[in-house]
Amino acid sequence: MDAGRKDIDALIDLMAKLPGLGPRSARRAVLHLIKKRERLMSPLADAMKSVAENARECVKCGNIGTGTICDICASEKRATGEICIVEDVADLWAMERAAVFRGRYHVLGGTLSALDAIGPEELRIPLLISRVRDEGVTEIILALNATIDGQTTAHYIADELAGACTVTSLAQGVPIGGELDYLDDGTITAALNARKGF
Amino acid sequence: MDAGRKDIDALIDLMAKLPGLGPRSARRAVLHLIKKRERLMSPLADAMKSVAENARECVKCGNIGTGTICDICASEKRATGEICIVEDVADLWAMERAAVFRGRYHVLGGTLSALDAIGPEELRIPLLISRVRDEGVTEIILALNATIDGQTTAHYIADELAGACTVTSLAQGVPIGGELDYLDDGTITAALNARKGF
Repeated sequence: MDAGRKDIDALIDLMAKLPGLGPRSARRAVLHLIKKRERLMSPLADAMKSVAENARECVKCGNIGTGTICDICASEKRATGEICIVEDVADLWAMERAAVFRGRYHVLGGTLSALDAIGPEELRIPLLISRVRDEGVTEIILALNATIDGQTTAHYIADELAGACTVTSLAQGVPIGGELDYLDDGTITAALNARKGF
Repeated sequence: MDAGRKDIDALIDLMAKLPGLGPRSARRAVLHLIKKRERLMSPLADAMKSVAENARECVKCGNIGTGTICDICASEKRATGEICIVEDVADLWAMERAAVFRGRYHVLGGTLSALDAIGPEELRIPLLISRVRDEGVTEIILALNATIDGQTTAHYIADELAGACTVTSLAQGVPIGGELDYLDDGTITAALNARKGF
Protein backbone atom coordinates (compact mmCIF):
# COMPACT_ATOMS: atom_id res chain seq x y z
CA MET A 1 0.00 0.00 0.00
CA ASP A 2 2.90 2.26 0.88
CA ALA A 3 4.35 1.86 -2.63
CA GLY A 4 1.79 4.35 -3.98
CA ARG A 5 3.10 7.34 -2.06
CA LYS A 6 6.70 6.29 -2.84
CA ASP A 7 5.94 6.30 -6.58
CA ILE A 8 4.42 9.76 -6.29
CA ASP A 9 7.40 11.04 -4.27
CA ALA A 10 9.81 9.59 -6.85
CA LEU A 11 7.88 11.37 -9.60
CA ILE A 12 7.98 14.67 -7.67
CA ASP A 13 11.76 14.31 -7.17
CA LEU A 14 12.29 13.74 -10.90
CA MET A 15 10.01 16.64 -11.88
CA ALA A 16 11.90 18.93 -9.48
CA LYS A 17 15.03 18.36 -11.59
CA LEU A 18 13.50 20.18 -14.56
CA PRO A 19 14.76 23.72 -15.12
CA GLY A 20 12.32 26.25 -13.71
CA LEU A 21 10.66 23.80 -11.31
CA GLY A 22 11.54 23.48 -7.63
CA PRO A 23 10.17 21.03 -5.05
CA ARG A 24 7.07 23.15 -4.49
CA SER A 25 6.10 23.66 -8.13
CA ALA A 26 6.97 20.01 -8.87
CA ARG A 27 4.43 18.95 -6.22
CA ARG A 28 1.85 21.27 -7.76
CA ALA A 29 2.57 19.92 -11.24
CA VAL A 30 2.32 16.30 -10.09
CA LEU A 31 -1.01 16.92 -8.33
CA HIS A 32 -2.28 18.59 -11.51
CA LEU A 33 -1.09 15.58 -13.52
CA ILE A 34 -2.76 13.12 -11.13
CA LYS A 35 -6.04 15.03 -11.39
CA LYS A 36 -5.83 14.87 -15.19
CA ARG A 37 -4.19 11.47 -15.40
CA GLU A 38 -6.09 10.22 -18.43
CA ARG A 39 -6.19 13.40 -20.46
CA LEU A 40 -2.72 14.74 -19.69
CA MET A 41 -0.49 12.42 -17.66
CA SER A 42 -0.71 9.27 -19.81
CA PRO A 43 -0.22 11.16 -23.11
CA LEU A 44 2.68 13.08 -21.56
CA ALA A 45 4.33 9.87 -20.33
CA ASP A 46 3.92 8.32 -23.78
CA ALA A 47 5.25 11.40 -25.59
CA MET A 48 8.23 11.53 -23.24
CA LYS A 49 8.98 7.83 -23.69
CA SER A 50 8.80 8.18 -27.46
CA VAL A 51 11.08 11.22 -27.58
CA ALA A 52 13.50 9.63 -25.07
CA GLU A 53 13.80 6.59 -27.30
CA ASN A 54 13.96 8.33 -30.64
CA ALA A 55 15.58 11.72 -30.20
CA ARG A 56 19.22 11.98 -31.18
CA GLU A 57 21.64 14.62 -32.30
CA CYS A 58 22.20 15.08 -36.03
CA VAL A 59 25.74 13.86 -36.84
CA LYS A 60 26.18 16.79 -39.24
CA CYS A 61 24.88 19.84 -37.41
CA GLY A 62 24.00 18.80 -33.85
CA ASN A 63 20.29 19.66 -34.19
CA ILE A 64 17.86 17.29 -32.49
CA GLY A 65 15.81 14.91 -34.60
CA THR A 66 14.96 11.25 -34.87
CA GLY A 67 17.33 10.10 -37.59
CA THR A 68 21.11 10.13 -37.99
CA ILE A 69 20.63 13.31 -40.05
CA CYS A 70 18.10 15.94 -38.90
CA ASP A 71 15.14 17.25 -40.91
CA ILE A 72 16.91 20.46 -41.89
CA CYS A 73 20.12 18.79 -43.08
CA ALA A 74 18.03 16.21 -44.97
CA SER A 75 15.75 18.78 -46.62
CA GLU A 76 16.49 19.53 -50.26
CA LYS A 77 14.70 22.87 -49.94
CA ARG A 78 17.37 24.34 -47.68
CA ALA A 79 20.32 26.15 -49.29
CA THR A 80 23.58 24.26 -48.79
CA GLY A 81 25.87 27.25 -49.22
CA GLU A 82 24.87 29.11 -46.04
CA ILE A 83 25.44 27.85 -42.53
CA CYS A 84 24.08 29.67 -39.47
CA ILE A 85 26.14 29.00 -36.33
CA VAL A 86 24.21 28.83 -33.07
CA GLU A 87 25.22 27.94 -29.52
CA ASP A 88 22.33 25.71 -28.68
CA VAL A 89 19.33 23.89 -30.15
CA ALA A 90 17.09 26.44 -28.38
CA ASP A 91 18.73 29.17 -30.50
CA LEU A 92 18.17 27.12 -33.66
CA TRP A 93 14.49 26.83 -32.72
CA ALA A 94 14.32 30.61 -32.15
CA MET A 95 15.80 31.21 -35.63
CA GLU A 96 13.34 28.75 -37.17
CA ARG A 97 10.40 30.48 -35.47
CA ALA A 98 11.45 33.71 -37.21
CA ALA A 99 11.25 31.63 -40.45
CA VAL A 100 13.57 33.94 -42.34
CA PHE A 101 16.72 31.85 -42.77
CA ARG A 102 16.55 29.20 -45.49
CA GLY A 103 20.06 27.74 -45.20
CA ARG A 104 21.37 25.14 -42.78
CA TYR A 105 22.61 25.27 -39.22
CA HIS A 106 25.53 24.23 -37.10
CA VAL A 107 24.91 23.84 -33.35
CA LEU A 108 28.13 24.37 -31.39
CA GLY A 109 26.80 22.91 -28.15
CA GLY A 110 28.09 25.80 -26.04
CA THR A 111 30.73 28.50 -26.15
CA LEU A 112 34.47 28.56 -25.61
CA SER A 113 35.20 29.19 -21.96
CA ALA A 114 38.62 29.35 -20.34
CA LEU A 115 37.04 29.18 -16.88
CA ASP A 116 35.13 25.99 -17.61
CA ALA A 117 38.00 24.53 -19.68
CA ILE A 118 35.85 24.34 -22.82
CA GLY A 119 38.07 24.48 -25.90
CA PRO A 120 37.25 24.08 -29.61
CA GLU A 121 37.49 20.28 -29.34
CA GLU A 122 34.68 20.21 -26.75
CA LEU A 123 32.40 22.08 -29.17
CA ARG A 124 31.52 21.14 -32.75
CA ILE A 125 34.16 23.53 -34.16
CA PRO A 126 36.42 20.94 -35.88
CA LEU A 127 33.27 19.46 -37.48
CA LEU A 128 32.27 22.96 -38.66
CA ILE A 129 35.64 23.51 -40.30
CA SER A 130 35.41 20.21 -42.18
CA ARG A 131 31.82 21.03 -43.22
CA VAL A 132 32.91 24.39 -44.65
CA ARG A 133 35.64 22.59 -46.61
CA ASP A 134 33.49 19.68 -47.84
CA GLU A 135 30.03 21.18 -48.45
CA GLY A 136 30.98 24.12 -50.66
CA VAL A 137 29.86 26.65 -48.07
CA THR A 138 30.06 30.27 -49.22
CA GLU A 139 28.75 32.08 -46.15
CA ILE A 140 28.88 31.47 -42.41
CA ILE A 141 26.40 33.54 -40.36
CA LEU A 142 27.39 33.85 -36.71
CA ALA A 143 24.21 33.91 -34.60
CA LEU A 144 25.87 33.54 -31.20
CA ASN A 145 24.57 35.24 -28.09
CA ALA A 146 25.82 38.78 -27.48
CA THR A 147 27.63 37.68 -24.31
CA ILE A 148 31.39 37.80 -23.71
CA ASP A 149 31.77 34.03 -24.20
CA GLY A 150 29.52 34.11 -27.26
CA GLN A 151 31.51 36.90 -28.88
CA THR A 152 34.88 35.29 -27.99
CA THR A 153 33.68 32.13 -29.71
CA ALA A 154 32.48 34.15 -32.71
CA HIS A 155 35.92 35.79 -33.07
CA TYR A 156 37.67 32.42 -32.78
CA ILE A 157 35.50 30.89 -35.52
CA ALA A 158 35.90 33.95 -37.77
CA ASP A 159 39.69 33.64 -37.42
CA GLU A 160 39.67 29.92 -38.14
CA LEU A 161 37.53 30.35 -41.27
CA ALA A 162 39.23 33.51 -42.57
CA GLY A 163 39.76 33.04 -46.30
CA ALA A 164 37.68 29.85 -46.50
CA CYS A 165 34.31 31.63 -46.85
CA THR A 166 32.48 34.89 -46.09
CA VAL A 167 31.83 35.26 -42.36
CA THR A 168 28.95 37.51 -41.26
CA SER A 169 27.14 37.97 -37.98
CA LEU A 170 23.65 39.07 -36.95
CA ALA A 171 23.30 42.86 -36.83
CA GLN A 172 23.29 44.47 -33.42
CA GLY A 173 21.03 47.41 -32.67
CA VAL A 174 17.69 48.51 -31.26
CA PRO A 175 15.25 45.58 -31.06
CA ILE A 176 11.92 45.96 -32.91
CA GLY A 177 9.50 47.59 -30.47
CA GLY A 178 12.39 48.55 -28.21
CA GLU A 179 12.34 51.89 -26.38
CA LEU A 180 15.65 53.77 -26.11
CA ASP A 181 14.93 54.67 -22.51
CA TYR A 182 14.97 51.00 -21.53
CA LEU A 183 18.02 49.95 -23.59
CA ASP A 184 21.47 49.41 -22.08
CA ASP A 185 24.38 51.63 -23.09
CA GLY A 186 26.10 48.85 -25.04
CA THR A 187 23.12 48.35 -27.32
CA ILE A 188 22.75 52.09 -27.95
CA THR A 189 26.48 52.38 -28.72
CA ALA A 190 26.30 49.41 -31.12
CA ALA A 191 23.18 50.82 -32.79
CA LEU A 192 24.79 54.26 -33.23
CA ASN A 193 28.02 52.83 -34.61
CA ALA A 194 26.08 50.70 -37.09
CA ARG A 195 23.75 53.56 -38.16
CA LYS A 196 22.62 53.58 -41.76
CA GLY A 197 21.02 55.96 -44.33
CA PHE A 198 17.29 56.53 -43.77
CA MET B 1 11.90 12.11 -40.87
CA ASP B 2 9.50 14.93 -40.08
CA ALA B 3 7.87 12.82 -37.37
CA GLY B 4 10.77 13.53 -35.03
CA ARG B 5 10.14 17.25 -34.76
CA LYS B 6 6.40 16.61 -34.50
CA ASP B 7 6.95 14.31 -31.51
CA ILE B 8 9.07 16.94 -29.83
CA ASP B 9 6.48 19.66 -30.54
CA ALA B 10 3.72 17.43 -29.15
CA LEU B 11 5.78 16.91 -26.00
CA ILE B 12 6.37 20.66 -25.63
CA ASP B 13 2.62 21.34 -26.03
CA LEU B 14 1.81 18.81 -23.31
CA MET B 15 4.51 20.13 -20.96
CA ALA B 16 3.20 23.68 -21.45
CA LYS B 17 -0.11 22.56 -19.88
CA LEU B 18 1.55 21.99 -16.51
CA PRO B 19 0.91 24.71 -13.92
CA GLY B 20 3.86 27.11 -13.72
CA LEU B 21 5.17 26.26 -17.19
CA GLY B 22 4.46 28.31 -20.32
CA PRO B 23 5.51 27.62 -23.91
CA ARG B 24 8.97 29.08 -23.33
CA SER B 25 9.80 27.21 -20.14
CA ALA B 26 8.25 24.03 -21.61
CA ARG B 27 10.70 24.27 -24.54
CA ARG B 28 13.56 24.76 -22.12
CA ALA B 29 12.44 21.80 -20.00
CA VAL B 30 12.09 19.55 -23.06
CA LEU B 31 15.58 20.48 -24.33
CA HIS B 32 16.95 19.72 -20.88
CA LEU B 33 15.13 16.38 -20.91
CA ILE B 34 16.47 15.52 -24.36
CA LYS B 35 20.00 16.29 -23.24
CA LYS B 36 19.56 14.00 -20.24
CA ARG B 37 17.34 11.47 -21.95
CA GLU B 38 18.81 8.37 -20.34
CA ARG B 39 19.37 9.68 -16.84
CA LEU B 40 16.24 11.81 -16.48
CA MET B 41 13.76 11.56 -19.35
CA SER B 42 13.28 7.77 -19.45
CA PRO B 43 12.96 7.42 -15.65
CA LEU B 44 10.54 10.37 -15.62
CA ALA B 45 8.41 8.84 -18.38
CA ASP B 46 8.33 5.52 -16.52
CA ALA B 47 7.47 7.15 -13.18
CA MET B 48 4.70 9.15 -14.84
CA LYS B 49 3.28 6.09 -16.58
CA SER B 50 3.29 4.13 -13.34
CA VAL B 51 1.58 6.88 -11.35
CA ALA B 52 -0.92 7.51 -14.16
CA GLU B 53 -1.90 3.84 -14.13
CA ASN B 54 -1.97 3.29 -10.39
CA ALA B 55 -2.93 6.55 -8.69
CA ARG B 56 -6.52 6.85 -7.56
CA GLU B 57 -8.56 8.72 -5.01
CA CYS B 58 -9.27 7.03 -1.69
CA VAL B 59 -13.01 6.23 -1.56
CA LYS B 60 -13.12 7.24 2.10
CA CYS B 61 -11.17 10.49 2.34
CA GLY B 62 -10.24 11.59 -1.20
CA ASN B 63 -6.47 11.39 -0.61
CA ILE B 64 -4.38 10.04 -3.47
CA GLY B 65 -2.94 6.56 -3.25
CA THR B 66 -2.77 3.35 -5.22
CA GLY B 67 -5.48 1.29 -3.57
CA THR B 68 -9.20 1.76 -3.03
CA ILE B 69 -8.31 3.00 0.48
CA CYS B 70 -5.30 5.30 0.95
CA ASP B 71 -2.28 4.63 3.23
CA ILE B 72 -3.54 6.95 5.95
CA CYS B 73 -7.07 5.52 6.10
CA ALA B 74 -5.58 2.00 6.03
CA SER B 75 -3.01 2.68 8.76
CA GLU B 76 -3.85 1.30 12.19
CA LYS B 77 -1.49 3.80 13.80
CA ARG B 78 -3.71 6.77 12.95
CA ALA B 79 -6.37 7.81 15.43
CA THR B 80 -9.87 7.18 14.08
CA GLY B 81 -11.66 9.71 16.28
CA GLU B 82 -10.15 12.86 14.74
CA ILE B 83 -10.67 14.00 11.17
CA CYS B 84 -8.82 16.97 9.69
CA ILE B 85 -10.76 18.63 6.85
CA VAL B 86 -8.66 20.05 4.00
CA GLU B 87 -9.60 21.57 0.66
CA ASP B 88 -7.07 19.75 -1.47
CA VAL B 89 -4.53 16.91 -1.47
CA ALA B 90 -1.76 19.55 -1.53
CA ASP B 91 -3.04 20.81 1.84
CA LEU B 92 -3.05 17.25 3.18
CA TRP B 93 0.58 16.90 2.08
CA ALA B 94 1.44 20.19 3.81
CA MET B 95 -0.16 18.93 7.06
CA GLU B 96 1.73 15.63 6.76
CA ARG B 97 5.05 17.47 6.26
CA ALA B 98 4.44 19.23 9.58
CA ALA B 99 4.07 15.66 10.99
CA VAL B 100 2.05 16.84 13.97
CA PHE B 101 -1.43 15.47 13.28
CA ARG B 102 -1.90 11.76 13.93
CA GLY B 103 -5.58 11.41 13.04
CA ARG B 104 -7.16 10.95 9.61
CA TYR B 105 -8.13 13.36 6.85
CA HIS B 106 -11.03 14.29 4.67
CA VAL B 107 -10.25 16.02 1.37
CA LEU B 108 -13.19 18.16 0.25
CA GLY B 109 -11.90 18.64 -3.28
CA GLY B 110 -12.53 22.40 -3.29
CA THR B 111 -14.68 24.96 -1.50
CA LEU B 112 -18.31 25.97 -1.73
CA SER B 113 -18.68 28.73 -4.29
CA ALA B 114 -21.89 30.39 -5.34
CA LEU B 115 -20.17 32.01 -8.33
CA ASP B 116 -18.89 28.70 -9.69
CA ALA B 117 -22.07 26.85 -8.70
CA ILE B 118 -20.22 24.48 -6.38
CA GLY B 119 -22.58 23.24 -3.68
CA PRO B 120 -22.09 20.62 -0.93
CA GLU B 121 -22.97 17.80 -3.37
CA GLU B 122 -20.05 18.74 -5.64
CA LEU B 123 -17.63 18.39 -2.70
CA ARG B 124 -17.16 15.42 -0.37
CA ILE B 125 -19.46 16.98 2.28
CA PRO B 126 -22.23 14.33 2.28
CA LEU B 127 -19.49 11.66 2.58
CA LEU B 128 -17.98 13.57 5.53
CA ILE B 129 -21.32 13.68 7.32
CA SER B 130 -21.78 9.93 6.93
CA ARG B 131 -18.16 9.33 8.10
CA VAL B 132 -18.79 11.36 11.25
CA ARG B 133 -21.92 9.28 11.91
CA ASP B 134 -20.37 5.87 11.12
CA GLU B 135 -16.77 6.10 12.35
CA GLY B 136 -17.31 7.30 15.90
CA VAL B 137 -15.63 10.64 15.20
CA THR B 138 -15.25 12.87 18.25
CA GLU B 139 -13.46 15.88 16.75
CA ILE B 140 -13.42 17.57 13.36
CA ILE B 141 -10.49 19.97 12.77
CA LEU B 142 -11.17 22.50 10.02
CA ALA B 143 -7.88 23.20 8.19
CA LEU B 144 -9.36 25.16 5.31
CA ASN B 145 -7.57 28.07 3.68
CA ALA B 146 -8.13 31.48 5.29
CA THR B 147 -9.92 32.76 2.17
CA ILE B 148 -13.54 33.87 1.94
CA ASP B 149 -14.61 30.66 0.17
CA GLY B 150 -12.58 28.55 2.60
CA GLN B 151 -14.17 30.19 5.63
CA THR B 152 -17.69 30.03 4.12
CA THR B 153 -17.17 26.31 3.64
CA ALA B 154 -15.86 25.96 7.21
CA HIS B 155 -18.98 27.67 8.61
CA TYR B 156 -21.26 25.48 6.49
CA ILE B 157 -19.57 22.29 7.74
CA ALA B 158 -19.59 23.49 11.36
CA ASP B 159 -23.34 24.14 11.07
CA GLU B 160 -24.03 20.75 9.51
CA LEU B 161 -22.06 18.90 12.19
CA ALA B 162 -23.29 20.97 15.15
CA GLY B 163 -24.13 18.51 17.95
CA ALA B 164 -22.62 15.50 16.15
CA CYS B 165 -19.04 16.11 17.33
CA THR B 166 -16.63 18.81 18.49
CA VAL B 167 -15.67 21.16 15.65
CA THR B 168 -12.38 23.08 15.93
CA SER B 169 -10.29 24.99 13.43
CA LEU B 170 -6.58 25.83 13.05
CA ALA B 171 -5.56 28.87 15.14
CA GLN B 172 -5.06 32.13 13.28
CA GLY B 173 -2.23 34.48 14.24
CA VAL B 174 1.31 35.57 13.57
CA PRO B 175 3.21 32.88 11.60
CA ILE B 176 6.41 31.51 13.19
CA GLY B 177 9.26 33.77 12.03
CA GLY B 178 6.74 36.36 10.84
CA GLU B 179 7.48 40.07 11.24
CA LEU B 180 4.60 42.32 12.25
CA ASP B 181 5.70 44.97 9.78
CA TYR B 182 5.07 42.60 6.87
CA LEU B 183 1.77 41.15 8.10
CA ASP B 184 -1.61 42.20 6.74
CA ASP B 185 -4.14 43.94 8.97
CA GLY B 186 -6.45 40.91 9.03
CA THR B 187 -3.76 38.66 10.50
CA ILE B 188 -2.81 41.23 13.14
CA THR B 189 -6.46 41.69 14.08
CA ALA B 190 -6.97 37.92 14.36
CA ALA B 191 -3.78 37.52 16.41
CA LEU B 192 -4.79 40.30 18.80
CA ASN B 193 -8.32 38.96 19.25
CA ALA B 194 -6.93 35.48 19.97
CA ARG B 195 -4.24 36.74 22.37
CA LYS B 196 -3.36 34.47 25.28
CA GLY B 197 -1.53 34.57 28.64
CA PHE B 198 2.25 34.64 28.35
